[in-house]
Amino acid sequence: MMTESNKENREDLPIGVFDSGVGGLTVVKEIMNQMPNERIVYFGDTARVPYGSKSKDTIVRYSRQIVRFLLEQNVKAIAVACNTASAYAVPEIEAECPVPVIGVIRPGAKTAVEGTKNGRIGVIGTRATISSESYTDYIRQIMPEAKVYGQACPLFVSLVEEGLWEDPVTDEIARRYMASLIDRKIDTLIMGCTHYPLIRKTIGRAVGSDVLLVNPAYETARELRKMLETRSLITKRGYELGSPVPQYRFYVSDMAGQFQRFANSIIKYGILAAEKIDIYKYSAEPL
Amino acid sequence: MMTESNKENREDLPIGVFDSGVGGLTVVKEIMNQMPNERIVYFGDTARVPYGSKSKDTIVRYSRQIVRFLLEQNVKAIAVACNTASAYAVPEIEAECPVPVIGVIRPGAKTAVEGTKNGRIGVIGTRATISSESYTDYIRQIMPEAKVYGQACPLFVSLVEEGLWEDPVTDEIARRYMASLIDRKIDTLIMGCTHYPLIRKTIGRAVGSDVLLVNPAYETARELRKMLETRSLITKRGYELGSPVPQYRFYVSDMAGQFQRFANSIIKYGILAAEKIDIYKYSAEPL
Repeated sequence: MMTESNKENREDLPIGVFDSGVGGLTVVKEIMNQMPNERIVYFGDTARVPYGSKSKDTIVRYSRQIVRFLLEQNVKAIAVACNTASAYAVPEIEAECPVPVIGVIRPGAKTAVEGTKNGRIGVIGTRATISSESYTDYIRQIMPEAKVYGQACPLFVSLVEEGLWEDPVTDEIARRYMASLIDRKIDTLIMGCTHYPLIRKTIGRAVGSDVLLVNPAYETARELRKMLETRSLITKRGYELGSPVPQYRFYVSDMAGQFQRFANSIIKYGILAAEKIDIYKYSAEPL
Repeated sequence: MMTESNKENREDLPIGVFDSGVGGLTVVKEIMNQMPNERIVYFGDTARVPYGSKSKDTIVRYSRQIVRFLLEQNVKAIAVACNTASAYAVPEIEAECPVPVIGVIRPGAKTAVEGTKNGRIGVIGTRATISSESYTDYIRQIMPEAKVYGQACPLFVSLVEEGLWEDPVTDEIARRYMASLIDRKIDTLIMGCTHYPLIRKTIGRAVGSDVLLVNPAYETARELRKMLETRSLITKRGYELGSPVPQYRFYVSDMAGQFQRFANSIIKYGILAAEKIDIYKYSAEPL
């Protein structure tokens, strides 16, 4: 494990990003694009994935363990890349954590409000994310008159992870999930799970080309940048190839090899290694 | 929590059964049918489900925690109802555990060998179960000349849990998974995941009516009975409706309500309540 030098500037510390598994890499990809000089420490909870079918209590416990691990890695800020963890655990973590925290829900909600013309917004996500009604709450804070329609799409994650990104089966399942949203005449759809942008084309075909698709990952990276700028936490350092300091570090709680294969299909960056760590040793109690 | 009286006869203690989630209830159902006087304590690890995509190390850790919980419930024997946990953790647990342990793999392998005529046996299961080659190992111990062909069917669990038991999408996915097994001219197919018997008809249509389908849950209950008889551990007590001792107790690590709904669709018995317990407090170290 790398230990940070004490004399290192706070703004040069890495950004911590976590997810229930591999999906959060879509957020990492956006951070890499929008802030190429920032270092990133990523944690994917592959030993306990998925979060989307689990309770708030369990998701908060798991998230606290991960935040403790990331703080030990001396991160300057934490991005919760998982929609389910953002919906259920960000309020707790924000209140407890000594470094700034950002989730994907608020940025996604904001973009949807900016994009809608008829005020009818659809949200798709895991069962837990939809039940939480977090997107609805944030949207209504900005646009009280908005109509928000949630639709859980529990099969999408498995279909994406099995690689059926362009497949008649995924098309058929997408048509079923989108039917009620089409009936509601939504003009904007939030893809409220990090896996969904990977089947963006399928979702677009099913919901119709007139509907604006919102990818919270993109907007989260933008909001994270603003947050770091406001707090003078943007690094001024540049990084060069072959630098002795690893710019990106990836950790998982299980199956490092499989993570690496899937990761490379998402970020196309060449993840050199993912390291398995013992997440169970971190306390799940409030920080 | 109920505590057992010390003067209670050993054979009247409950049987412990565990699974990664709800699927193991297919084994419970068989135990209820075949040994209606036996008490059962069931644990479903719904906070960490599924096991089928996780590593041996993680599955062994989780299984040890569960065994500790079941031993605290004073069980007389343990049935590992999950194929993945049976494949990866039964050898360790058998060696460490003070009460007899049975998994689903050995009974399933035995039935397949008894059923095959051409010695060509297919096995379907999670990625972890198929990678472990446990069914292959047990089959070859009894029938060294057998040809065993494994096929991971990772989408089946999600499709079953989403209720698509009779659905064109499940038919299409089943056809794809079965194609290579049909090419291999298998005459016997082990349904090596507790969820699969719930889509037995779909699997049967896809693989062809000439292929014998083996449900290890049935055979595991039969073997468990034999094991208990051999060790004089079969209860002689009868139970009556309204008995003060709860005959069946169900515990989960998360989402007790959802478990109950799905459970009732499997056992059709009326599970009165499932209780959530804190599985994290049990050590994952060797017993």
